[in-house]
Amino acid sequence: MGSKIKIDRALAPIGGLLTLSERFITGDNPLGILAQAAILVRGEKILWVGKQDDVPASFDLTEADIVDLSGETVMPGLIDCHTHLVFSGSRAGEFDLRVKGATYLEILKAGGGIGATVRATQEASFDELYDLGIQRLSHMMRRGVTTVEAKSGYGLSPEGERRLLEVMRALDRDHSAEIVPTFLGAHTIPPRYKENPGKYVESVIQEMIPDVADKSLAEFCDVFCEEGVFDVTASRKILETARQYGLRLKIHADQLAASGGGALAAELKATSAEHLEYLPEAVIPAFRDAGTVAVLLPVAGLYLMMDRIPPVASLRRQGVPIAIATDFNPGSAPCLSLLTTMTLAAATYRLSTEEIIKGVTIHAARAVGREKVIGRVEEGYQADFSMFPVRDYALIVTTFGETLPTRVMKRGKWVPLASSTQPLKTVV
Amino acid sequence: MGSKIKIDRALAPIGGLLTLSERFITGDNPLGILAQAAILVRGEKILWVGKQDDVPASFDLTEADIVDLSGETVMPGLIDCHTHLVFSGSRAGEFDLRVKGATYLEILKAGGGIGATVRATQEASFDELYDLGIQRLSHMMRRGVTTVEAKSGYGLSPEGERRLLEVMRALDRDHSAEIVPTFLGAHTIPPRYKENPGKYVESVIQEMIPDVADKSLAEFCDVFCEEGVFDVTASRKILETARQYGLRLKIHADQLAASGGGALAAELKATSAEHLEYLPEAVIPAFRDAGTVAVLLPVAGLYLMMDRIPPVASLRRQGVPIAIATDFNPGSAPCLSLLTTMTLAAATYRLSTEEIIKGVTIHAARAVGREKVIGRVEEGYQADFSMFPVRDYALIVTTFGETLPTRVMKRGKWVPLASSTQPLKTVV
Repeated sequence: MGSKIKIDRALAPIGGLLTLSERFITGDNPLGILAQAAILVRGEKILWVGKQDDVPASFDLTEADIVDLSGETVMPGLIDCHTHLVFSGSRAGEFDLRVKGATYLEILKAGGGIGATVRATQEASFDELYDLGIQRLSHMMRRGVTTVEAKSGYGLSPEGERRLLEVMRALDRDHSAEIVPTFLGAHTIPPRYKENPGKYVESVIQEMIPDVADKSLAEFCDVFCEEGVFDVTASRKILETARQYGLRLKIHADQLAASGGGALAAELKATSAEHLEYLPEAVIPAFRDAGTVAVLLPVAGLYLMMDRIPPVASLRRQGVPIAIATDFNPGSAPCLSLLTTMTLAAATYRLSTEEIIKGVTIHAARAVGREKVIGRVEEGYQADFSMFPVRDYALIVTTFGETLPTRVMKRGKWVPLASSTQPLKTVV
Repeated sequence: MGSKIKIDRALAPIGGLLTLSERFITGDNPLGILAQAAILVRGEKILWVGKQDDVPASFDLTEADIVDLSGETVMPGLIDCHTHLVFSGSRAGEFDLRVKGATYLEILKAGGGIGATVRATQEASFDELYDLGIQRLSHMMRRGVTTVEAKSGYGLSPEGERRLLEVMRALDRDHSAEIVPTFLGAHTIPPRYKENPGKYVESVIQEMIPDVADKSLAEFCDVFCEEGVFDVTASRKILETARQYGLRLKIHADQLAASGGGALAAELKATSAEHLEYLPEAVIPAFRDAGTVAVLLPVAGLYLMMDRIPPVASLRRQGVPIAIATDFNPGSAPCLSLLTTMTLAAATYRLSTEEIIKGVTIHAARAVGREKVIGRVEEGYQADFSMFPVRDYALIVTTFGETLPTRVMKRGKWVPLASSTQPLKTVV
């Protein structure tokens, strides 16, 4: 026994394991589903995955925490690859204004929108923002999410942006959820720069990006590339600077109009481009060639009552990886549930169940630059899992956010599902 | 003190009380909101509601359970006025088929749809159906619902329909949720009557309705009035018979085509008509004059990927009461959350926050014929409340089902929120 490898945890998902691993994916089995599977965990990582009958004798399971998961569907921990996690203040009233006919840009011009959140966030203390972040992450994990991309962008000054990224760093350190921090200083032009927006772009380039990079506060730089906010020229300048400082690139692109953001993402080989309701068809081949992930955000589409959806059929036909995210934010997507978002994405964008599952696992992992670490159940990957109390994984997508996981594991450890001590049973 | 009236519970919703009571509703205050309010409960009923400073001295609060609800929004217990609560079997796969292009009627004709649920329900025991019902009701109450309309319709034989209604009676007796039972024998034509659908209509009229009425198993009779299912002539015959037997009337009308169901609802002065995507504009005045409630079901609209919504603007303009419900069922609406449904209704039907709140309280109460008993916070009404951890009630509508109540009271008693022992805090 001395030469055997000690296993910390062995999981036996009899109901079905969605590996999303190329080892198991075939034409007939696009999610790499394994029945009668076993997962062996050592430390933070997956050491072995395969059929229960094939567990090698070289593993020592005598001290392992062996978990029988009959009847459960086990899948990689979900990845919410686009959120505005850290902010203060409610903008619930805006939704009703939009229902009654006001547009996003009208609300923005009236001093609502992002500006209102910037003011409320500036007034909140570090601890208040941290506490909100902890609550939100727990809420998200309760819904199966183990990795959260989080954007700054409610500071809009060197100190303000730095503070938000520092809150994220503290959250990543203290909470079991994993945070991928993104610098989004170019979220909107703050009012004090209204007469001279170019000066704000200079501040982003000359002050904020160097500061963020120097302190290693972000992995990505994002820009809200849209008419009246940051045009293609300004966005290119910001993103090229960010790349020089070692940041990877994301773009809020072609959401409200065809503003050139999608083409810029392809040109700069951005890791991802987000929203994309107005992405021109002609840009899609360049997108695919650049390896850019299309991150679709159907909750914002719903809340903004857009009569247009992204060019899903073309993205699919041309092989662009499609990820799905909540876009959690207080204005256009005050929704913390990636599960609810998945149902909405299926119904409104006509994404298949398999596409939805890939959109919150392998493709979302790629959108946050961690496709070698998370998003699959494969040897060497992080032991991040969500376990749902259903045999038919389709129910995770069809029940509109109401099928919650019974257990969640992050980096080899069970996550205490704090906000709800008893799992909600699936009842559909 | 001897002459004072003993109070069982006194609730002090400092954050805001949505009374929905005509005593407090004004043009500026369409929901009858009271700040610094107090509610006094005796037994199952509301004895007094008003300002805290105005509590009459004739009440004896010495033994009352006094609850300080600062920061909470208190509203009448929500009413889900259209559900297919009792069934067995999952039809999760159908959703993906629809995403890929199959229509509802195609799935129906291929032996899927309602037929699949009828088979699975027939195979389930009384106890299995009862247990599923208990779980579902607890899940719904956790989301603020205190009254649930429930339709039969997966039996399709005198014994099968009776059994479902008996399950509902047992649920109503044992669970703190209140059930309004509806007989929906005319849900679809069972395959054995395919060659002679008229014979099934005869069975509904001559066997089922008399049996249901004789045993007092239902308060309402509903019909799925749609092309290829029950046409207007058959629907009229069924509903007129039901009325003769003392049942009140509901109609699934004009959902998939303009099939005349809405006009029939107005002609028969039905209590409610549901779905209504194809309700002709010309029928709306008759609808209003008949006092029929329009019950809108946006989840089914989403899951069926309909490109048409009910004529909301005309219904509003002509003063038809609009209610909102989940339509919970395993095919077109596997969603147990009325809260999620409320957000969807606002965004897809452009209903205002006030209309949504009325749609799950006073108008839903009218749709289930209990407008004198539930749906408001008013003297003499049942003490049914849901208490949400937000000061701004708009957040209940905007957070896509994620703001759960901290407490729920039904008929003067606190409901144990069993499926989640700790309330989920609002984090938006």
